Amino acid sequence: MDTISQALSHGGVQGVYRHDAASTRCPMTFAVFVPPQARSGPVPVLWYLSGLTCTHANVMDKGEYRRVAAERGVILVAPDTSPRGPGVPDEPDNWQFGCGAGFYVDATQAPYDRNYRMWSYVVDELPALVAANFPADMARQGVFGHSMGGHGALTVALRNPGRFRSCSAFAPIVQPSTAGWSRPAFEKYLGADPAGWRRYDATALIEDGHRFPEFLVDQGSADGFLQDGLRPWLLEEACRKAGIPLALTMREGYDHSYYFISTFMEAHIAWAAERLAA
Amino acid sequence: MDTISQALSHGGVQGVYRHDAASTRCPMTFAVFVPPQARSGPVPVLWYLSGLTCTHANVMDKGEYRRVAAERGVILVAPDTSPRGPGVPDEPDNWQFGCGAGFYVDATQAPYDRNYRMWSYVVDELPALVAANFPADMARQGVFGHSMGGHGALTVALRNPGRFRSCSAFAPIVQPSTAGWSRPAFEKYLGADPAGWRRYDATALIEDGHRFPEFLVDQGSADGFLQDGLRPWLLEEACRKAGIPLALTMREGYDHSYYFISTFMEAHIAWAAERLAA
Repeated sequence: MDTISQALSHGGVQGVYRHDAASTRCPMTFAVFVPPQARSGPVPVLWYLSGLTCTHANVMDKGEYRRVAAERGVILVAPDTSPRGPGVPDEPDNWQFGCGAGFYVDATQAPYDRNYRMWSYVVDELPALVAANFPADMARQGVFGHSMGGHGALTVALRNPGRFRSCSAFAPIVQPSTAGWSRPAFEKYLGADPAGWRRYDATALIEDGHRFPEFLVDQGSADGFLQDGLRPWLLEEACRKAGIPLALTMREGYDHSYYFISTFMEAHIAWAAERLAA
Repeated sequence: MDTISQALSHGGVQGVYRHDAASTRCPMTFAVFVPPQARSGPVPVLWYLSGLTCTHANVMDKGEYRRVAAERGVILVAPDTSPRGPGVPDEPDNWQFGCGAGFYVDATQAPYDRNYRMWSYVVDELPALVAANFPADMARQGVFGHSMGGHGALTVALRNPGRFRSCSAFAPIVQPSTAGWSRPAFEKYLGADPAGWRRYDATALIEDGHRFPEFLVDQGSADGFLQDGLRPWLLEEACRKAGIPLALTMREGYDHSYYFISTFMEAHIAWAAERLAA
Protein backbone atom coordinates (compact mmCIF):
# COMPACT_ATOMS: atom_id res chain seq x y z
CA MET A 1 0.00 0.00 0.00
CA ASP A 2 1.46 3.36 -1.04
CA THR A 3 0.60 6.63 0.62
CA ILE A 4 -0.29 9.17 -2.06
CA SER A 5 -1.00 12.06 0.31
CA GLN A 6 -1.81 12.83 3.92
CA ALA A 7 -3.02 16.08 5.44
CA LEU A 8 -4.25 17.16 8.83
CA SER A 9 -7.89 18.27 8.72
CA HIS A 10 -10.40 18.91 11.49
CA GLY A 11 -7.94 17.31 13.90
CA GLY A 12 -7.71 14.04 11.98
CA VAL A 13 -5.72 12.83 8.99
CA GLN A 14 -7.16 12.72 5.48
CA GLY A 15 -5.09 10.28 3.46
CA VAL A 16 -5.14 8.90 -0.05
CA TYR A 17 -3.63 5.47 -0.66
CA ARG A 18 -3.04 3.12 -3.56
CA HIS A 19 -2.53 -0.61 -3.74
CA ASP A 20 -2.40 -3.36 -6.33
CA ALA A 21 -5.76 -5.02 -5.90
CA ALA A 22 -6.03 -8.74 -6.48
CA SER A 23 -9.79 -8.73 -6.97
CA THR A 24 -9.84 -6.08 -9.71
CA ARG A 25 -6.37 -6.87 -11.07
CA CYS A 26 -5.32 -3.22 -11.19
CA PRO A 27 -4.02 -0.49 -8.89
CA MET A 28 -6.86 0.93 -6.82
CA THR A 29 -6.86 4.31 -5.08
CA PHE A 30 -8.93 5.01 -1.99
CA ALA A 31 -9.34 7.72 0.66
CA VAL A 32 -9.31 7.22 4.42
CA PHE A 33 -10.03 9.83 7.07
CA VAL A 34 -8.76 8.86 10.51
CA PRO A 35 -10.26 10.92 13.35
CA PRO A 36 -8.20 12.17 16.29
CA GLN A 37 -9.79 9.63 18.65
CA ALA A 38 -7.87 6.87 16.85
CA ARG A 39 -4.67 7.98 18.61
CA SER A 40 -6.10 6.32 21.72
CA GLY A 41 -7.15 3.08 20.08
CA PRO A 42 -9.28 1.54 17.33
CA VAL A 43 -12.41 3.39 16.25
CA PRO A 44 -15.47 2.37 14.17
CA VAL A 45 -15.34 2.37 10.38
CA LEU A 46 -17.88 3.95 8.07
CA TRP A 47 -17.77 2.99 4.39
CA TYR A 48 -18.90 5.58 1.87
CA LEU A 49 -19.69 4.20 -1.58
CA SER A 50 -19.77 6.82 -4.33
CA GLY A 51 -22.00 7.26 -7.35
CA LEU A 52 -21.58 7.09 -11.11
CA THR A 53 -18.53 8.89 -12.56
CA CYS A 54 -16.95 9.38 -9.13
CA THR A 55 -13.55 8.37 -7.86
CA HIS A 56 -12.48 8.34 -4.19
CA ALA A 57 -11.92 12.10 -4.56
CA ASN A 58 -15.42 13.50 -5.06
CA VAL A 59 -16.71 12.90 -1.56
CA MET A 60 -13.29 13.72 -0.14
CA ASP A 61 -13.44 17.15 -1.79
CA LYS A 62 -17.14 17.95 -1.55
CA GLY A 63 -18.72 15.67 1.03
CA GLU A 64 -17.99 17.81 4.11
CA TYR A 65 -17.67 14.71 6.29
CA ARG A 66 -14.43 15.40 8.14
CA ARG A 67 -15.77 17.73 10.81
CA VAL A 68 -18.49 15.30 11.84
CA ALA A 69 -16.31 12.18 11.53
CA ALA A 70 -13.74 13.91 13.75
CA GLU A 71 -16.40 14.86 16.29
CA ARG A 72 -17.94 11.40 16.31
CA GLY A 73 -14.68 9.49 16.18
CA VAL A 74 -15.23 7.35 13.11
CA ILE A 75 -12.91 6.38 10.29
CA LEU A 76 -14.43 7.12 6.89
CA VAL A 77 -13.24 5.05 3.91
CA ALA A 78 -14.09 6.09 0.36
CA PRO A 79 -13.22 3.50 -2.31
CA ASP A 80 -13.16 4.12 -6.03
CA THR A 81 -16.24 3.12 -8.05
CA SER A 82 -14.58 0.78 -10.54
CA PRO A 83 -11.30 -0.68 -11.73
CA ARG A 84 -9.34 1.70 -13.94
CA GLY A 85 -6.30 1.88 -16.14
CA PRO A 86 -4.68 0.31 -19.18
CA GLY A 87 -6.13 -3.08 -19.92
CA VAL A 88 -9.39 -2.46 -18.09
CA PRO A 89 -12.21 -2.74 -20.65
CA ASP A 90 -14.29 0.40 -20.79
CA GLU A 91 -16.79 2.38 -22.80
CA PRO A 92 -15.23 5.83 -22.46
CA ASP A 93 -18.23 7.71 -23.83
CA ASN A 94 -20.73 5.87 -21.61
CA TRP A 95 -20.85 7.29 -18.09
CA GLN A 96 -23.27 4.57 -17.00
CA PHE A 97 -20.95 1.63 -17.70
CA GLY A 98 -17.31 0.69 -17.28
CA CYS A 99 -14.84 2.98 -15.54
CA GLY A 100 -16.62 5.01 -12.89
CA ALA A 101 -19.62 2.69 -13.09
CA GLY A 102 -18.72 -0.61 -11.45
CA PHE A 103 -22.14 -0.88 -9.75
CA TYR A 104 -20.56 -2.86 -6.90
CA VAL A 105 -21.03 -6.19 -8.66
CA ASP A 106 -18.71 -9.09 -9.48
CA ALA A 107 -19.03 -9.34 -13.25
CA THR A 108 -19.56 -12.80 -14.67
CA GLN A 109 -19.35 -11.90 -18.36
CA ALA A 110 -16.20 -11.59 -20.49
CA PRO A 111 -14.36 -9.33 -20.90
CA TYR A 112 -15.60 -7.59 -17.75
CA ASP A 113 -15.26 -10.51 -15.36
CA ARG A 114 -11.49 -10.08 -15.22
CA ASN A 115 -11.48 -6.62 -13.57
CA TYR A 116 -15.02 -5.59 -12.65
CA ARG A 117 -15.14 -7.32 -9.31
CA MET A 118 -16.11 -4.37 -7.15
CA TRP A 119 -18.28 -6.49 -4.86
CA SER A 120 -15.29 -8.60 -3.83
CA TYR A 121 -13.12 -5.53 -3.65
CA VAL A 122 -15.43 -3.54 -1.40
CA VAL A 123 -16.73 -6.43 0.71
CA ASP A 124 -13.54 -8.47 1.12
CA GLU A 125 -10.26 -7.11 -0.16
CA LEU A 126 -10.37 -3.48 0.91
CA PRO A 127 -11.75 -4.24 4.39
CA ALA A 128 -8.85 -6.65 4.96
CA LEU A 129 -6.39 -3.97 3.86
CA VAL A 130 -8.02 -1.34 6.07
CA ALA A 131 -8.07 -3.70 9.04
CA ALA A 132 -4.36 -4.36 8.61
CA ASN A 133 -3.23 -0.78 8.09
CA PHE A 134 -5.51 1.55 10.05
CA PRO A 135 -6.66 1.82 13.68
CA ALA A 136 -10.04 0.35 12.73
CA ASP A 137 -12.40 -1.54 15.01
CA MET A 138 -13.75 -3.91 12.39
CA ALA A 139 -16.38 -5.17 14.83
CA ARG A 140 -18.08 -1.81 14.40
CA GLN A 141 -18.73 -1.02 10.75
CA GLY A 142 -21.36 0.97 8.97
CA VAL A 143 -21.96 1.61 5.28
CA PHE A 144 -23.57 4.41 3.34
CA GLY A 145 -23.43 5.84 -0.13
CA HIS A 146 -24.91 7.99 -2.87
CA SER A 147 -26.92 7.01 -5.93
CA MET A 148 -25.07 4.00 -7.42
CA GLY A 149 -23.21 3.92 -4.12
CA GLY A 150 -26.50 3.99 -2.24
CA HIS A 151 -27.41 0.87 -4.19
CA GLY A 152 -24.03 -0.51 -3.15
CA ALA A 153 -24.58 0.32 0.51
CA LEU A 154 -28.07 -1.21 0.62
CA THR A 155 -27.03 -4.44 -1.11
CA VAL A 156 -23.80 -4.83 0.87
CA ALA A 157 -25.72 -4.37 4.13
CA LEU A 158 -28.59 -6.68 3.16
CA ARG A 159 -26.15 -9.47 2.29
CA ASN A 160 -23.90 -8.85 5.30
CA PRO A 161 -26.27 -7.93 8.13
CA GLY A 162 -23.93 -9.41 10.73
CA ARG A 163 -21.08 -7.18 9.71
CA PHE A 164 -22.72 -3.78 9.47
CA ARG A 165 -24.45 -2.04 12.30
CA SER A 166 -25.80 0.81 10.17
CA CYS A 167 -26.77 1.49 6.59
CA SER A 168 -27.99 4.70 5.02
CA ALA A 169 -28.12 6.28 1.60
CA PHE A 170 -28.42 9.55 -0.23
CA ALA A 171 -30.67 9.21 -3.28
CA PRO A 172 -29.97 5.50 -3.82
CA ILE A 173 -30.76 3.49 -6.93
CA VAL A 174 -33.09 1.15 -5.10
CA GLN A 175 -33.96 -1.18 -7.97
CA PRO A 176 -31.06 -1.14 -10.43
CA SER A 177 -32.22 -4.23 -12.29
CA THR A 178 -35.12 -2.30 -13.81
CA ALA A 179 -33.82 1.28 -13.99
CA GLY A 180 -32.80 2.61 -17.37
CA TRP A 181 -29.34 3.77 -16.37
CA SER A 182 -28.33 0.51 -14.64
CA ARG A 183 -30.15 -2.34 -16.37
CA PRO A 184 -27.86 -2.25 -19.46
CA ALA A 185 -24.83 -2.36 -17.18
CA PHE A 186 -26.25 -5.31 -15.25
CA GLU A 187 -26.78 -7.14 -18.53
CA LYS A 188 -23.21 -6.54 -19.68
CA TYR A 189 -21.64 -7.35 -16.33
CA LEU A 190 -23.91 -10.20 -15.29
CA GLY A 191 -25.42 -11.68 -18.44
CA ALA A 192 -28.86 -11.66 -19.97
CA ASP A 193 -30.69 -13.64 -17.30
CA PRO A 194 -32.33 -11.27 -14.80
CA ALA A 195 -32.31 -14.02 -12.19
CA GLY A 196 -28.59 -13.38 -11.78
CA TRP A 197 -29.17 -9.71 -11.06
CA ARG A 198 -31.32 -10.13 -7.96
CA ARG A 199 -28.42 -10.45 -5.55
CA TYR A 200 -27.31 -6.97 -6.59
CA ASP A 201 -30.73 -5.35 -6.31
CA ALA A 202 -31.89 -4.02 -2.91
CA THR A 203 -35.62 -4.47 -3.47
CA ALA A 204 -35.12 -7.94 -4.96
CA LEU A 205 -32.90 -8.95 -2.04
CA ILE A 206 -35.61 -7.90 0.39
CA GLU A 207 -38.24 -9.77 -1.64
CA ASP A 208 -35.96 -12.80 -1.54
CA GLY A 209 -35.78 -12.71 2.25
CA HIS A 210 -32.72 -10.67 3.06
CA ARG A 211 -33.13 -8.38 6.04
CA PHE A 212 -31.40 -5.48 7.74
CA PRO A 213 -32.51 -3.85 11.01
CA GLU A 214 -33.30 -0.40 9.56
CA PHE A 215 -32.40 2.04 6.82
CA LEU A 216 -32.03 5.81 6.63
CA VAL A 217 -32.60 7.36 3.19
CA ASP A 218 -32.68 11.01 2.11
CA GLN A 219 -33.86 11.97 -1.35
CA GLY A 220 -34.02 15.38 -2.99
CA SER A 221 -37.35 16.28 -4.53
CA ALA A 222 -35.65 18.26 -7.33
CA ASP A 223 -33.37 15.35 -8.24
CA GLY A 224 -33.52 14.91 -12.02
CA PHE A 225 -33.05 11.15 -11.67
CA LEU A 226 -35.83 10.67 -9.13
CA GLN A 227 -38.64 9.38 -11.37
CA ASP A 228 -36.75 7.06 -13.68
CA GLY A 229 -33.52 6.12 -11.95
CA LEU A 230 -33.98 6.26 -8.19
CA ARG A 231 -37.65 5.63 -7.29
CA PRO A 232 -37.36 5.40 -3.50
CA TRP A 233 -41.03 4.38 -3.30
CA LEU A 234 -39.99 0.94 -4.53
CA LEU A 235 -37.73 0.55 -1.50
CA GLU A 236 -40.47 1.95 0.69
CA GLU A 237 -42.87 -0.69 -0.57
CA ALA A 238 -40.36 -3.52 -0.20
CA CYS A 239 -39.47 -2.44 3.33
CA ARG A 240 -43.10 -2.08 4.29
CA LYS A 241 -43.92 -5.58 3.13
CA ALA A 242 -40.84 -7.00 4.85
CA GLY A 243 -41.32 -5.04 8.06
CA ILE A 244 -37.96 -3.26 7.76
CA PRO A 245 -38.06 0.20 9.32
CA LEU A 246 -37.15 2.79 6.68
CA ALA A 247 -36.61 6.44 7.61
CA LEU A 248 -37.14 8.00 4.17
CA THR A 249 -37.30 11.76 3.90
CA MET A 250 -38.00 13.72 0.74
CA ARG A 251 -35.91 16.89 0.88
CA GLU A 252 -37.80 19.67 -0.83
CA GLY A 253 -35.84 21.42 -3.58
CA TYR A 254 -32.62 19.43 -3.31
CA ASP A 255 -30.97 17.95 -6.39
CA HIS A 256 -28.66 14.96 -6.93
CA SER A 257 -25.36 16.76 -6.30
CA TYR A 258 -22.88 17.04 -3.46
CA TYR A 259 -24.70 20.24 -2.48
CA PHE A 260 -27.45 17.87 -1.38
CA ILE A 261 -25.17 15.19 0.04
CA SER A 262 -23.09 17.62 2.10
CA THR A 263 -26.26 19.14 3.55
CA PHE A 264 -27.35 15.83 5.06
CA MET A 265 -23.90 14.31 5.65
CA GLU A 266 -23.95 15.26 9.32
CA ALA A 267 -27.29 13.54 9.90
CA HIS A 268 -26.11 10.34 8.22
CA ILE A 269 -22.81 10.18 10.11
CA ALA A 270 -24.67 10.88 13.36
CA TRP A 271 -27.13 8.08 12.56
CA ALA A 272 -24.25 5.71 11.95
CA ALA A 273 -22.23 6.85 14.96
CA GLU A 274 -25.13 6.19 17.31
CA ARG A 275 -25.34 2.64 16.03
CA LEU A 276 -21.56 2.17 16.05
CA ALA A 277 -21.14 3.31 19.66
CA ALA A 278 -19.58 0.57 21.74
CA MET B 1 -25.38 38.83 -15.41
CA ASP B 2 -25.96 35.20 -16.43
CA THR B 3 -26.80 32.42 -14.01
CA ILE B 4 -24.51 29.48 -14.68
CA SER B 5 -25.92 27.22 -11.97
CA GLN B 6 -27.94 27.29 -8.78
CA ALA B 7 -28.44 24.54 -6.22
CA LEU B 8 -30.04 24.31 -2.82
CA SER B 9 -27.49 23.51 -0.11
CA HIS B 10 -27.72 23.68 3.67
CA GLY B 11 -31.01 25.52 3.24
CA GLY B 12 -29.52 28.30 1.11
CA VAL B 13 -28.74 28.68 -2.58
CA GLN B 14 -25.25 28.19 -4.00
CA GLY B 15 -25.08 29.98 -7.32
CA VAL B 16 -22.47 30.58 -9.97
CA TYR B 17 -22.82 33.67 -12.16
CA ARG B 18 -21.00 35.30 -15.04
CA HIS B 19 -20.93 38.87 -16.31
CA ASP B 20 -18.96 41.00 -18.72
CA ALA B 21 -16.73 42.98 -16.41
CA ALA B 22 -15.82 46.52 -17.40
CA SER B 23 -12.81 46.73 -15.10
CA THR B 24 -11.08 43.59 -16.38
CA ARG B 25 -12.53 43.78 -19.90
CA CYS B 26 -13.49 40.10 -19.97
CA PRO B 27 -16.26 37.81 -18.74
CA MET B 28 -15.82 37.10 -15.04
CA THR B 29 -17.32 34.16 -13.14
CA PHE B 30 -18.10 34.30 -9.44
CA ALA B 31 -19.90 32.25 -6.79
CA VAL B 32 -22.51 33.51 -4.35
CA PHE B 33 -24.09 31.58 -1.50
CA VAL B 34 -27.31 33.13 -0.24
CA PRO B 35 -28.44 31.84 3.17
CA PRO B 36 -32.07 31.04 4.00
CA GLN B 37 -32.37 34.15 6.19
CA ALA B 38 -32.23 36.30 3.03
CA ARG B 39 -35.80 35.28 2.23
CA SER B 40 -36.86 37.68 5.00
CA GLY B 41 -34.67 40.60 3.94
CA PRO B 42 -31.11 41.71 3.24
CA VAL B 43 -28.30 39.95 5.10
CA PRO B 44 -24.60 40.78 5.62
CA VAL B 45 -22.03 40.00 2.94
CA LEU B 46 -18.75 38.20 3.48
CA TRP B 47 -16.16 38.37 0.70
CA TYR B 48 -13.82 35.41 0.32
CA LEU B 49 -10.72 36.11 -1.77
CA SER B 50 -8.95 33.00 -3.04
CA GLY B 51 -5.28 32.16 -3.44
CA LEU B 52 -2.94 31.51 -6.34
CA THR B 53 -4.22 29.16 -9.10
CA CYS B 54 -7.79 29.26 -7.77
CA THR B 55 -11.00 30.22 -9.49
CA HIS B 56 -14.32 30.90 -7.75
CA ALA B 57 -14.79 27.13 -7.61
CA ASN B 58 -12.08 25.97 -5.22
CA VAL B 59 -13.58 27.38 -2.05
CA MET B 60 -17.07 26.57 -3.31
CA ASP B 61 -16.09 22.91 -3.63
CA LYS B 62 -13.72 22.49 -0.70
CA GLY B 63 -14.21 25.39 1.71
CA GLU B 64 -17.08 23.88 3.73
CA TYR B 65 -18.57 27.32 4.35
CA ARG B 66 -22.22 26.77 3.47
CA ARG B 67 -23.33 25.14 6.72
CA VAL B 68 -21.94 27.98 8.82
CA ALA B 69 -22.98 30.76 6.45
CA ALA B 70 -26.51 29.31 6.51
CA GLU B 71 -26.50 29.13 10.31
CA ARG B 72 -25.13 32.64 10.68
CA GLY B 73 -27.17 34.20 7.91
CA VAL B 74 -24.44 35.70 5.75
CA ILE B 75 -24.03 35.87 2.00
CA LEU B 76 -20.63 34.57 0.90
CA VAL B 77 -19.20 35.86 -2.38
CA ALA B 78 -16.18 34.19 -3.99
CA PRO B 79 -14.72 36.09 -6.95
CA ASP B 80 -12.19 34.70 -9.40
CA THR B 81 -8.52 35.55 -8.83
CA SER B 82 -7.75 37.16 -12.19
CA PRO B 83 -9.10 38.03 -15.60
CA ARG B 84 -9.12 35.09 -17.98
CA GLY B 85 -9.74 34.20 -21.58
CA PRO B 86 -8.65 34.97 -25.13
CA GLY B 87 -6.79 38.24 -25.30
CA VAL B 88 -5.83 38.30 -21.64
CA PRO B 89 -2.01 38.28 -21.46
CA ASP B 90 -0.72 35.36 -19.45
CA GLU B 91 2.31 33.23 -18.66
CA PRO B 92 0.65 29.81 -18.79
CA ASP B 93 3.59 27.97 -17.24
CA ASN B 94 3.96 30.44 -14.35
CA TRP B 95 1.44 29.79 -11.56
CA GLN B 96 2.60 32.89 -9.70
CA PHE B 97 1.71 35.39 -12.42
CA GLY B 98 -1.07 36.10 -14.88
CA CYS B 99 -4.22 34.01 -14.95
CA GLY B 100 -5.00 32.73 -11.47
CA ALA B 101 -2.55 35.21 -9.98
CA GLY B 102 -4.04 38.69 -10.17
CA PHE B 103 -2.81 39.60 -6.67
CA TYR B 104 -5.77 41.98 -6.26
CA VAL B 105 -3.90 44.91 -7.82
CA ASP B 106 -4.72 47.35 -10.61
CA ALA B 107 -1.82 46.84 -13.00
CA THR B 108 -0.15 49.97 -14.33
CA GLN B 109 2.20 48.31 -16.80
CA ALA B 110 1.44 47.27 -20.39
CA PRO B 111 0.25 44.83 -21.52
CA TYR B 112 -1.22 43.89 -18.11
CA ASP B 113 -2.92 47.21 -17.33
CA ARG B 114 -5.68 46.49 -19.81
CA ASN B 115 -7.16 43.48 -17.97
CA TYR B 116 -5.41 42.95 -14.64
CA ARG B 117 -7.53 45.36 -12.61
CA MET B 118 -8.59 43.00 -9.87
CA TRP B 119 -8.49 45.75 -7.23
CA SER B 120 -11.15 47.75 -9.06
CA TYR B 121 -13.07 44.59 -9.83
CA VAL B 122 -13.19 43.32 -6.25
CA VAL B 123 -13.51 46.70 -4.51
CA ASP B 124 -15.87 48.50 -6.89
CA GLU B 125 -17.40 46.61 -9.79
CA LEU B 126 -18.38 43.30 -8.23
CA PRO B 127 -19.79 44.88 -5.04
CA ALA B 128 -22.02 47.09 -7.18
CA LEU B 129 -23.22 44.04 -9.10
CA VAL B 130 -23.86 42.09 -5.91
CA ALA B 131 -25.70 45.02 -4.34
CA ALA B 132 -27.96 45.25 -7.38
CA ASN B 133 -28.71 41.55 -7.77
CA PHE B 134 -28.68 39.88 -4.37
CA PRO B 135 -30.43 40.47 -1.01
CA ALA B 136 -27.25 41.98 0.41
CA ASP B 137 -27.02 44.50 3.23
CA MET B 138 -24.02 46.40 1.90
CA ALA B 139 -23.77 48.36 5.15
CA ARG B 140 -22.56 45.13 6.75
CA GLN B 141 -19.61 43.66 4.88
CA GLY B 142 -16.65 41.58 5.93
CA VAL B 143 -13.70 40.25 3.97
CA PHE B 144 -11.43 37.26 4.34
CA GLY B 145 -9.21 35.14 2.19
CA HIS B 146 -6.45 32.61 1.80
CA SER B 147 -2.80 33.11 0.92
CA MET B 148 -2.79 35.59 -2.02
CA GLY B 149 -6.42 36.17 -1.07
CA GLY B 150 -5.39 36.79 2.53
CA HIS B 151 -3.13 39.51 1.17
CA GLY B 152 -6.12 40.76 -0.78
CA ALA B 153 -8.38 40.77 2.28
CA LEU B 154 -5.87 42.59 4.48
CA THR B 155 -5.11 45.28 1.90
CA VAL B 156 -8.74 45.78 0.90
CA ALA B 157 -9.72 46.18 4.57
CA LEU B 158 -6.82 48.50 5.43
CA ARG B 159 -7.69 50.82 2.56
CA ASN B 160 -11.45 50.64 3.16
CA PRO B 161 -11.84 50.52 6.94
CA GLY B 162 -15.17 52.28 6.77
CA ARG B 163 -16.68 49.67 4.51
CA PHE B 164 -15.66 46.45 6.23
CA ARG B 165 -16.57 45.47 9.75
CA SER B 166 -14.36 42.39 9.83
CA CYS B 167 -11.21 41.07 8.21
CA SER B 168 -9.51 37.73 8.66
CA ALA B 169 -7.16 35.49 6.75
CA PHE B 170 -5.94 31.94 6.39
CA ALA B 171 -2.17 31.84 5.82
CA PRO B 172 -1.99 35.29 4.19
CA ILE B 173 0.93 36.67 2.21
CA VAL B 174 1.49 39.56 4.60
CA GLN B 175 4.32 41.29 2.78
CA PRO B 176 4.00 40.48 -0.93
CA SER B 177 6.39 43.21 -2.03
CA THR B 178 9.35 41.26 -0.61
CA ALA B 179 8.23 37.61 -0.91
CA GLY B 180 9.79 35.55 -3.67
CA TRP B 181 6.53 34.33 -5.17
CA SER B 182 4.89 37.75 -5.37
CA ARG B 183 7.62 40.34 -5.87
CA PRO B 184 8.17 39.41 -9.56
CA ALA B 185 4.43 39.75 -10.17
CA PHE B 186 4.33 43.15 -8.47
CA GLU B 187 7.19 44.29 -10.71
CA LYS B 188 5.42 43.14 -13.86
CA TYR B 189 2.00 44.49 -12.87
CA LEU B 190 3.12 47.69 -11.14
CA GLY B 191 6.53 48.61 -12.54
CA ALA B 192 10.05 48.58 -11.16
CA ASP B 193 9.63 51.23 -8.47
CA PRO B 194 8.84 49.56 -5.12
CA ALA B 195 7.23 52.79 -3.94
CA GLY B 196 4.27 51.94 -6.14
CA TRP B 197 3.86 48.55 -4.48
CA ARG B 198 3.22 49.77 -0.95
CA ARG B 199 -0.49 50.35 -1.39
CA TYR B 200 -0.85 46.65 -2.18
CA ASP B 201 1.22 45.42 0.76
CA ALA B 202 -0.44 44.94 4.18
CA THR B 203 2.62 45.57 6.31
CA ALA B 204 3.61 48.62 4.24
CA LEU B 205 0.08 50.00 4.45
CA ILE B 206 0.19 49.71 8.23
CA GLU B 207 3.63 51.36 8.29
CA ASP B 208 2.21 54.13 6.13
CA GLY B 209 -0.58 54.80 8.61
CA HIS B 210 -3.51 52.70 7.43
CA ARG B 211 -5.49 51.13 10.23
CA PHE B 212 -8.15 48.50 10.79
CA PRO B 213 -9.80 47.68 14.13
CA GLU B 214 -8.51 44.10 14.43
CA PHE B 215 -7.44 41.07 12.43
CA LEU B 216 -7.88 37.33 12.83
CA VAL B 217 -5.19 35.15 11.20
CA ASP B 218 -4.70 31.39 11.28
CA GLN B 219 -1.52 29.85 9.94
CA GLY B 220 -0.54 26.18 9.65
CA SER B 221 2.83 25.27 11.11
CA ALA B 222 3.41 22.61 8.44
CA ASP B 223 2.69 25.06 5.61
CA GLY B 224 5.49 24.73 3.07
CA PHE B 225 5.21 28.42 2.17
CA LEU B 226 5.45 29.66 5.74
CA GLN B 227 9.11 30.70 5.93
CA ASP B 228 9.58 32.31 2.53
CA GLY B 229 6.18 33.30 1.25
CA LEU B 230 3.85 33.99 4.16
CA ARG B 231 5.87 35.11 7.23
CA PRO B 232 3.03 36.09 9.56
CA TRP B 233 5.57 37.46 12.06
CA LEU B 234 5.98 40.46 9.77
CA LEU B 235 2.30 41.27 10.18
CA GLU B 236 2.59 40.59 13.89
CA GLU B 237 5.40 43.13 14.18
CA ALA B 238 3.61 45.75 12.07
CA CYS B 239 0.38 45.35 14.07
CA ARG B 240 2.24 45.51 17.39
CA LYS B 241 3.96 48.76 16.41
CA ALA B 242 0.68 50.21 15.14
CA GLY B 243 -1.40 49.01 18.06
CA ILE B 244 -3.72 46.91 15.87
CA PRO B 245 -5.04 43.88 17.73
CA LEU B 246 -4.05 40.73 15.83
CA ALA B 247 -5.38 37.32 16.85
CA LEU B 248 -2.73 35.14 15.18
CA THR B 249 -2.75 31.42 15.91
CA MET B 250 -0.22 28.92 14.63
CA ARG B 251 -2.06 25.68 13.93
CA GLU B 252 0.26 22.78 14.65
CA GLY B 253 0.64 20.33 11.78
CA TYR B 254 -1.66 22.03 9.29
CA ASP B 255 -0.53 22.70 5.72
CA HIS B 256 -1.54 25.31 3.11
CA SER B 257 -4.46 23.40 1.60
CA TYR B 258 -8.22 23.49 1.85
CA TYR B 259 -7.92 20.74 4.46
CA PHE B 260 -6.54 23.52 6.65
CA ILE B 261 -8.92 26.23 5.46
CA SER B 262 -12.04 24.10 5.92
CA THR B 263 -10.96 23.19 9.43
CA PHE B 264 -10.96 26.82 10.53
CA MET B 265 -13.67 28.12 8.20
CA GLU B 266 -16.30 27.95 10.94
CA ALA B 267 -14.20 30.06 13.32
CA HIS B 268 -13.59 32.73 10.67
CA ILE B 269 -17.22 32.96 9.63
CA ALA B 270 -18.25 33.12 13.29
CA TRP B 271 -15.70 35.92 13.88
CA ALA B 272 -17.11 37.84 10.95
CA ALA B 273 -20.75 37.17 11.83
CA GLU B 274 -20.30 38.56 15.33
CA ARG B 275 -18.97 41.79 13.85
CA LEU B 276 -21.61 41.89 11.13
CA ALA B 277 -24.52 41.47 13.53
CA ALA B 278 -26.87 44.43 13.30
